[in-house]
Amino acid sequence: MRKYKISEIVVKRLPLYLRCLTYLDKMGVPTISSHELGHKLGVKPSQIRKDLAYFGEFGKQGIGYEVSYLRGEIRHILGLTEHIRVAVVGAGKLGQALSEYILLKREDFDIAAIFDRDPQKVGMEVGGVKVSHIDDLRKVVQEEQIQMGIVTVPANAAQKVINFMCDAGIQGILSFAPIAVTVPEGVRFYNVDFTMELQSLAYYLTGQGKGEF
Amino acid sequence: MRKYKISEIVVKRLPLYLRCLTYLDKMGVPTISSHELGHKLGVKPSQIRKDLAYFGEFGKQGIGYEVSYLRGEIRHILGLTEHIRVAVVGAGKLGQALSEYILLKREDFDIAAIFDRDPQKVGMEVGGVKVSHIDDLRKVVQEEQIQMGIVTVPANAAQKVINFMCDAGIQGILSFAPIAVTVPEGVRFYNVDFTMELQSLAYYLTGQGKGEF
Repeated sequence: MRKYKISEIVVKRLPLYLRCLTYLDKMGVPTISSHELGHKLGVKPSQIRKDLAYFGEFGKQGIGYEVSYLRGEIRHILGLTEHIRVAVVGAGKLGQALSEYILLKREDFDIAAIFDRDPQKVGMEVGGVKVSHIDDLRKVVQEEQIQMGIVTVPANAAQKVINFMCDAGIQGILSFAPIAVTVPEGVRFYNVDFTMELQSLAYYLTGQGKGEF
Repeated sequence: MRKYKISEIVVKRLPLYLRCLTYLDKMGVPTISSHELGHKLGVKPSQIRKDLAYFGEFGKQGIGYEVSYLRGEIRHILGLTEHIRVAVVGAGKLGQALSEYILLKREDFDIAAIFDRDPQKVGMEVGGVKVSHIDDLRKVVQEEQIQMGIVTVPANAAQKVINFMCDAGIQGILSFAPIAVTVPEGVRFYNVDFTMELQSLAYYLTGQGKGEF
């Protein structure tokens, strides 16, 4: 555990850096400056240097960052050194689509279980994973050593499902349910809202940034 | 059009502010300081003040921001004064799930058309919208005055589909295809990657932030 906490907004930028570094590494780029990286990502170079400095000294004056090394370090900081076991709760279209996406990518995350309460869905296979009944959540989470959960149930079921997941010992939850929920202490919770991306796109189409490209 | 460009990262924070203000407004909260707002969002108060100052003077010394007023101003800045017409390209599970989500929400965005090239999907209804053939994209985009597109096709089809959308005059694209693509000048393009959210969650579960809540 770190001696001091890093702001969540810094932690959320690390995957952005990682994605770019992975791409550069694949392209065979050996080093990159914070200026070049900032330009590619639309982030201030000073921000990148400050964010990374929380975790160590990764850059070299006049050279910048070694792409492959920094990539490895960020993966280590994020704890992506081995696959993380994930449960998806809600086997509707979104749950199926996300499960298949992650199963196809086979990077960093394994879908270890999928849950639903609909008898029509329980037993069906999604990307090779059999859908379990939500009543078996606690048992399966423990047996399968699941650490993370993705919630894709309707808004009116979200809080109940999330309580259930927290009780079962899941400590990290990503929810796609369009509703505010509460989680107990000791659980990290993110809410994803697609429409926020659309709203920022709107700025360039109908808002004050109209015509800026 | 603005006299100077605002950084995309600022524009991407506006929907975050908006979401919180909408919630506060619904709760009947009349005013909020940049400190309180920053605390709720995990963003520095100075950052919020700086972001908003690009667009005008919204706060009052000693009072803060009027919630309902600021909410309206941000909606205006983003161009959310009337519904924006959106096309979804790819009527697979993800395309269907996103379309239904947006159609159900009926806020800011209308799904005006859905496209696929699979004869099994063309003609089928998703949330009351009939799936059109991708060959009719240009015609439908013009007839339906579509401004924005969401791409949910597989990675290997994404570039071709995106070229087609740009040719048809769509100027804002949100892609869920897990691949890097290029777009011509005059088109604003965002890529959504679910796994980036999972990666930042991992920081708290298996990474250096393990046990921090």
